[in-house]
Amino acid sequence: DFAKIDNHREIRTGYPEVIFGQGKTPEQLREIISFMISKESNILATRVDPEVSGYVSDLSPDIQYHKLARCLTIRKKPAEKTAESIAVVTAGTGDLPVAEEACVTAEIFDNRVERFFDVGVAGVHRLYDNLDDIRKCRVVVVVAGMEGALPSLVGGLVDKPVIAVPTSIGYGANFSGLSALLGMLTSCAAGVSVVNIDNGFGAGYLAGMINKL
Amino acid sequence: DFAKIDNHREIRTGYPEVIFGQGKTPEQLREIISFMISKESNILATRVDPEVSGYVSDLSPDIQYHKLARCLTIRKKPAEKTAESIAVVTAGTGDLPVAEEACVTAEIFDNRVERFFDVGVAGVHRLYDNLDDIRKCRVVVVVAGMEGALPSLVGGLVDKPVIAVPTSIGYGANFSGLSALLGMLTSCAAGVSVVNIDNGFGAGYLAGMINKL
Amino acid sequence: DFAKIDNHREIRTGYPEVIFGQGKTPEQLREIISFMISKESNILATRVDPEVSGYVSDLSPDIQYHKLARCLTIRKKPAEKTAESIAVVTAGTGDLPVAEEACVTAEIFDNRVERFFDVGVAGVHRLYDNLDDIRKCRVVVVVAGMEGALPSLVGGLVDKPVIAVPTSIGYGANFSGLSALLGMLTSCAAGVSVVNIDNGFGAGYLAGMINKL
Amino acid sequence: DFAKIDNHREIRTGYPEVIFGQGKTPEQLREIISFMISKESNILATRVDPEVSGYVSDLSPDIQYHKLARCLTIRKKPAEKTAESIAVVTAGTGDLPVAEEACVTAEIFDNRVERFFDVGVAGVHRLYDNLDDIRKCRVVVVVAGMEGALPSLVGGLVDKPVIAVPTSIGYGANFSGLSALLGMLTSCAAGVSVVNIDNGFGAGYLAGMINKL
Amino acid sequence: DFAKIDNHREIRTGYPEVIFGQGKTPEQLREIISFMISKESNILATRVDPEVSGYVSDLSPDIQYHKLARCLTIRKKPAEKTAESIAVVTAGTGDLPVAEEACVTAEIFDNRVERFFDVGVAGVHRLYDNLDDIRKCRVVVVVAGMEGALPSLVGGLVDKPVIAVPTSIGYGANFSGLSALLGMLTSCAAGVSVVNIDNGFGAGYLAGMINKL
Amino acid sequence: DFAKIDNHREIRTGYPEVIFGQGKTPEQLREIISFMISKESNILATRVDPEVSGYVSDLSPDIQYHKLARCLTIRKKPAEKTAESIAVVTAGTGDLPVAEEACVTAEIFDNRVERFFDVGVAGVHRLYDNLDDIRKCRVVVVVAGMEGALPSLVGGLVDKPVIAVPTSIGYGANFSGLSALLGMLTSCAAGVSVVNIDNGFGAGYLAGMINKL
Amino acid sequence: DFAKIDNHREIRTGYPEVIFGQGKTPEQLREIISFMISKESNILATRVDPEVSGYVSDLSPDIQYHKLARCLTIRKKPAEKTAESIAVVTAGTGDLPVAEEACVTAEIFDNRVERFFDVGVAGVHRLYDNLDDIRKCRVVVVVAGMEGALPSLVGGLVDKPVIAVPTSIGYGANFSGLSALLGMLTSCAAGVSVVNIDNGFGAGYLAGMINKL
Amino acid sequence: DFAKIDNHREIRTGYPEVIFGQGKTPEQLREIISFMISKESNILATRVDPEVSGYVSDLSPDIQYHKLARCLTIRKKPAEKTAESIAVVTAGTGDLPVAEEACVTAEIFDNRVERFFDVGVAGVHRLYDNLDDIRKCRVVVVVAGMEGALPSLVGGLVDKPVIAVPTSIGYGANFSGLSALLGMLTSCAAGVSVVNIDNGFGAGYLAGMINKL
Ligand SMILES: Nc1ncnc2c1ncn2[C@@H]1O[C@H](COP(=O)(O)O)[C@@H](O)[C@H]1O
Ligand SMILES: Nc1ncnc2c1ncn2[C@@H]1O[C@H](COP(=O)(O)O)[C@@H](O)[C@H]1O
Ligand SMILES: Nc1ncnc2c1ncn2[C@@H]1O[C@H](COP(=O)(O)O)[C@@H](O)[C@H]1O
Ligand SMILES: Nc1ncnc2c1ncn2[C@@H]1O[C@H](COP(=O)(O)O)[C@@H](O)[C@H]1O
Ligand SMILES: [Mg+2]
Ligand SMILES: [Mg+2]
Ligand SMILES: [Mg+2]
Ligand SMILES: [Mg+2]
Ligand SMILES: [Mg+2]
Ligand SMILES: [Mg+2]
Ligand SMILES: [Mg+2]
Ligand SMILES: [Mg+2]
Repeated sequence: DFAKIDNHREIRTGYPEVIFGQGKTPEQLREIISFMISKESNILATRVDPEVSGYVSDLSPDIQYHKLARCLTIRKKPAEKTAESIAVVTAGTGDLPVAEEACVTAEIFDNRVERFFDVGVAGVHRLYDNLDDIRKCRVVVVVAGMEGALPSLVGGLVDKPVIAVPTSIGYGANFSGLSALLGMLTSCAAGVSVVNIDNGFGAGYLAGMINKL
Repeated sequence: DFAKIDNHREIRTGYPEVIFGQGKTPEQLREIISFMISKESNILATRVDPEVSGYVSDLSPDIQYHKLARCLTIRKKPAEKTAESIAVVTAGTGDLPVAEEACVTAEIFDNRVERFFDVGVAGVHRLYDNLDDIRKCRVVVVVAGMEGALPSLVGGLVDKPVIAVPTSIGYGANFSGLSALLGMLTSCAAGVSVVNIDNGFGAGYLAGMINKL
Repeated sequence: DFAKIDNHREIRTGYPEVIFGQGKTPEQLREIISFMISKESNILATRVDPEVSGYVSDLSPDIQYHKLARCLTIRKKPAEKTAESIAVVTAGTGDLPVAEEACVTAEIFDNRVERFFDVGVAGVHRLYDNLDDIRKCRVVVVVAGMEGALPSLVGGLVDKPVIAVPTSIGYGANFSGLSALLGMLTSCAAGVSVVNIDNGFGAGYLAGMINKL
Repeated sequence: DFAKIDNHREIRTGYPEVIFGQGKTPEQLREIISFMISKESNILATRVDPEVSGYVSDLSPDIQYHKLARCLTIRKKPAEKTAESIAVVTAGTGDLPVAEEACVTAEIFDNRVERFFDVGVAGVHRLYDNLDDIRKCRVVVVVAGMEGALPSLVGGLVDKPVIAVPTSIGYGANFSGLSALLGMLTSCAAGVSVVNIDNGFGAGYLAGMINKL
Repeated sequence: DFAKIDNHREIRTGYPEVIFGQGKTPEQLREIISFMISKESNILATRVDPEVSGYVSDLSPDIQYHKLARCLTIRKKPAEKTAESIAVVTAGTGDLPVAEEACVTAEIFDNRVERFFDVGVAGVHRLYDNLDDIRKCRVVVVVAGMEGALPSLVGGLVDKPVIAVPTSIGYGANFSGLSALLGMLTSCAAGVSVVNIDNGFGAGYLAGMINKL
Repeated sequence: DFAKIDNHREIRTGYPEVIFGQGKTPEQLREIISFMISKESNILATRVDPEVSGYVSDLSPDIQYHKLARCLTIRKKPAEKTAESIAVVTAGTGDLPVAEEACVTAEIFDNRVERFFDVGVAGVHRLYDNLDDIRKCRVVVVVAGMEGALPSLVGGLVDKPVIAVPTSIGYGANFSGLSALLGMLTSCAAGVSVVNIDNGFGAGYLAGMINKL
Repeated sequence: DFAKIDNHREIRTGYPEVIFGQGKTPEQLREIISFMISKESNILATRVDPEVSGYVSDLSPDIQYHKLARCLTIRKKPAEKTAESIAVVTAGTGDLPVAEEACVTAEIFDNRVERFFDVGVAGVHRLYDNLDDIRKCRVVVVVAGMEGALPSLVGGLVDKPVIAVPTSIGYGANFSGLSALLGMLTSCAAGVSVVNIDNGFGAGYLAGMINKL
Repeated sequence: DFAKIDNHREIRTGYPEVIFGQGKTPEQLREIISFMISKESNILATRVDPEVSGYVSDLSPDIQYHKLARCLTIRKKPAEKTAESIAVVTAGTGDLPVAEEACVTAEIFDNRVERFFDVGVAGVHRLYDNLDDIRKCRVVVVVAGMEGALPSLVGGLVDKPVIAVPTSIGYGANFSGLSALLGMLTSCAAGVSVVNIDNGFGAGYLAGMINKL
């Protein structure tokens, strides 16, 4: 009654609805998951706190909680991984939760994912060490906070679509992710587009969509 | 001497360098185009004012100036259009120049482009009339100013990647494109990513990259 | 002494003063309600936390606490509902508290209210399913966070005044409701006006005023 | 071709489409007006510069150009003025063009309009002198720049819906209308809603809609 | 050692240094007060939390803690009140702590203060009831949050210097006091100047300085 | 008709109305001045461009145009200068027009004014050279752009009210006067209050009011 | 695995990698320090909470926790202090933690540091008392919050590079350090550059780099 | 009289005063230069438009106008170039004027300067080609617009102080240099500090100061 779950979504867009956990009470979340479990689609809920995850863990033996990503998944269909991969690249350690949200999202939609973490521009040789492997992927997600310079660099070195995710990691003139957001939007490298600050889900979802074209 | 033209770019990223005309003197532009004309790649210069275009028009019989898009192109290789299309959708009349920049960019990189103009949310039946055709395209560019609501709507109706382009068209609380930019970044529809305000080029380039995957 | 209660307000504007609970101590609230209870008007207090509501619940047997709306009402005059209704429409689940504040406000002023919840633009068919019923109402309140696109859409489909309420629900480029606020202010649809972020009260009050014209 | 004129709008919303002149070339405007002249509705074009108005003046003997409002109207149906009036109130001299845009808009939709100009809070007795007449109107439009305090004051004195229009008139911390906009949105008086900065059209249109309920 | 107390300040500016309690540890505060108690000036410490006040209360029998104002004073010289008064005016109940900070500050510097609380523009008759008394004062401090309209109104009605204090009271488009701040800075009434958001101390200090000229 | 000139203002506040020239047409200005010339008060019009000043210069032999201040004055009553002075201090050369607006305003209201120009903090010895003379004045106006540090320094050295005027002079992170405005509002020196960016008039008027207390 | 520690950094830039503690779990921090302890470089970790420092204190007998600076250091090479000093200057007491972060950083890299604390512009004689000693240093770090005026003043008095550090100390129009940041960036004194808000580490590191040239 | 030229500056700080041409009339500039020409120091005036430069060119046969840098210099003492160099690095063609302002400033103060232009991150091999030469310099100025990523990259590769200069070159989310400014301030590379947007002068001056330590 408080929510109109979008069941036709899978028919309309090819993807089942995803549950955005933030701001939902444990009861609301439990009710929505219970309802969706009766359907055939895989289930993904993002922004789920550990305690809330405990509160719903009995709903299915297949529930999996991804601690770092703060996501909850239930796989109902056997996985058929894509042949090609999505690269998920991060600048620093603090960007991990957002990057993992992207990874978990892409994986529940059956994408193969390769992680390249902590390769930011302040020590750029770490990126170069991984460049050949990144170039083999079909689409690249780049997660970075502070000055958000990494997507520009990757965009200038790789001939694949780059999805940039600014994170709110940082302090001072970072202004809750604004510095990274503006930096990524004004990137001088072509082939880069941007999703909302900390929106790992959006990046993983879009990357999966592109990967399956 | 004032510019290091990036000739290896095509080898490195699969795409030739594009000339960003804004802020360059006519002399600088002429010099850069002259140099690039001696190579084999197609040439694209964006943000070129009509007068400047006149100043370089004698450089090649194949120079074409796209007035609305404010772009200049020289086709050196025969066009081999892609089988699938990019949809370019606009909300209102004022978004046309940005949309055309996206179209010209995508076309010079050999993409087939379909235009769906002036179908904004204030009269949403105009979008519905075109929905079947939009759904047939492989990737969708949505250009909108003011509240920038159109990409959310399209993203919820189409199962293809949506590249949203906020425009600076409007007045008041639009704050030079900020309202559309923030609206698009916070879009509730998944599968949407955003490029810089008025960056038709970036959208067209990325759409082409995705279309050719 | 700390407050000059505006008793002539009902005479001057036709509406009794409403108590804004936020920032008031439980003692202040108790004192104000005690004073107003001795008058004949219905009483509405907004932004009242559950604990505070407990602290004043003994003041009258007729006190009612609306948990979701965080409002407290005392009805002193028998309800005479208006013949026509106010539609209250929300985009997502997170917008409910603000929407309920609008509903409770409109209802204590004797307006008939119809709720249309969770019909946001990302799954727009949910709005279409309810359109006929919304069109029958005399005025429409639309509550939405993030990109705040719903009022534009409703405004283009319905020939009634639309009062848009941006909510602070969201994260990242939402910037505490700024994205929804700017989006609604720059709406391309005519007939839309905006109240403060999260101001369900203001919307419900104004809707009631218009409904009774 | 560059515009999909929304002819069903009048059927759908009860109001004909209005032409937003800003950003349109004289040729585009001429073409749109020519097309609309063949229909039966009254015509309103806003944000039309004097020169542009000259360029289309031969299209009909009934074209009227409102210099201060920068609007162009063609009345095709005989006026049937409403019984009740809309009050249009301004704070200062500089707010006149925006106020007149509201007046012309309301009038072309057959509303009776009463003007109360230059009654801002710095000399508040001027407002009091007109209060009785303002109170007789059915809805009040208040146009103000700088600190935008007038709508709060009017909202506290009048029991009618107040539509507040911030203007970009001013300098310094006015920041192109931001100070008035924020002031109006946070107004302590209930019954006040806000449209975009300088959006006289939006206020006049909404006021007319409410006036005719 | 962590602080260079400005003892010559009284000689240099006629006023003893005031202690800004915010961000100081209880130990630091205790040390500073101990030191200053050995001098002859009256002592004022602002932004002192109740617990901290308990931690220093034994330092002198004359310590007084002003709960609402969150100030701590020690009077060492007998009070010689000024002949003329400072008016301290507030818009709403939430502005009280800031107003009291101004009052306590002015009073410790021997000014006579008159309080006019909760007379905001939404019910403007409350201001008019007090206007004669306000006009008798030598300088007026006006404290207001949200739209911050009260100083403009007072400035237009009273021929005395008005010191406006924006407060961070509010929500939404108030943006932590920004709406009131911008409103006051752009006030159309002459004779108004502004201090920092929530800076009751600054207003009380300056009012005292003017009152004693 | 377009303006309700506030004639009772002098009775109500002790000061005649001042004409704000910005945004007024030459015709409007001429009409207002013609009307006011028939009264007995001195006349001050601010923000008057040189050309406009020429257009009204025949209205009275006593009209004086102050080029740097962009003000126009007509003195109708013999000057009776105050015994005490207002100090007007500027940081740099670019602040002169704003400072002169303050001076002309204060002088037309019969205040004695002393100018201390170009004594900014980057070469602070220039301030010290003038400190004794500044200290003799009754109130100090400090005009500064960029970082706006001068009022803090003066406020710490002088025991008189300081009225700070931020100017929009500068570039980059100055953001049209925002840097100076914020700096002055957060000044660590007590006794400082702030008027709008570039508002020399407001500072001169308030300084005069204080000077005459 | 969650972090690629940049071991070649010392070879590449002459400085070992520094650990940024904020946002790292105690376990992550412990793992990183353990790893680095096996190398020869001195170790510096910034933004380490007291509890976290306890959790790693057993890793080495040489671990030192700097409470005010919230830094943790392990000295592995004997100190060889530079001949010349870095001056670290603060405006107020609240700036101490940031200043100490700068000091500890500079010292672990073997710089001699001299502290000049609480010498802000509101009582400028305190700066003058220390000017001769500051002038003897090779580079000056100036830490200040609120209006951030101190670097301008120092820059105008001292012929050495000034590194300005804005702090987030303050309230109201300080907007989390924005006022100080903008003030320092627009400083009228030449020879001043700025690091991020609260970035004591960055200032100490850069000062050390310059000191050793 | 309008300017107090700071003649003791050279004694006090070791550097003569520099003339900031922006906002000065040609007459003012001529007067200042005439005065300074009578002294022994070299003269530098920045932000001088070509026309203004013509107006003063007769003042000395040694006047030199630097067109791209918009600077005017008069060398009065024979140049004694420093042994070591300052590297001035730019990201793109549009950053040239700001970079040249830095170069001309550094050179008039007798520094040896090496230019590395158009080596931005979108084609990062261009930076690598020049890295050995940059590393040989004593201090590095990096000028970049849009996302401002270049200083981070350089800071991670070079063990010298980096002075970052954000430029206002760009459009959209660049917001007049804000994106580059925030990016540089939040740079993850240590050893980087920032001057005002477009402040080539400040960077050149500071670089010279460091180079001569
Ligand atoms: N972490 C996330 N960030 C942004 N959007 C999300 C996230 N997770 C889910 N969503 C979107 O939120 C929608 C569901 O919202 P709701 O109806 O509030 O649960 C989904 O269809 C997704 O498009
Ligand atoms: N002055 C105005 N301000 C804002 N919106 C306007 C204005 N005038 C017309 N409009 C709206 O703009 C729509 C037409 O836009 P367009 O298709 O670009 O001509 C109309 O249906 C109105 O809703
Ligand atoms: N330069 C100025 N800046 C700000 N306010 C001004 C200025 N000059 C005059 N004013 C104010 O503007 C009022 C007149 O405004 P108006 O009715 O628009 O001419 C006067 O009473 C003054 O309070
Ligand atoms: N391009 C520039 N940007 C910023 N500050 C400058 C510039 N050129 C000169 N300055 C500074 O401005 C001061 C002179 O300002 P003024 O007295 O207004 O000419 C000089 O001492 C420099 O510190
Ligand atoms: Mg690292
Ligand atoms: Mg249209
Ligand atoms: Mg939903
Ligand atoms: Mg009240
Ligand atoms: Mg007036
Ligand atoms: Mg100077
Ligand atoms: Mg102190
Ligand atoms: Mg290039």
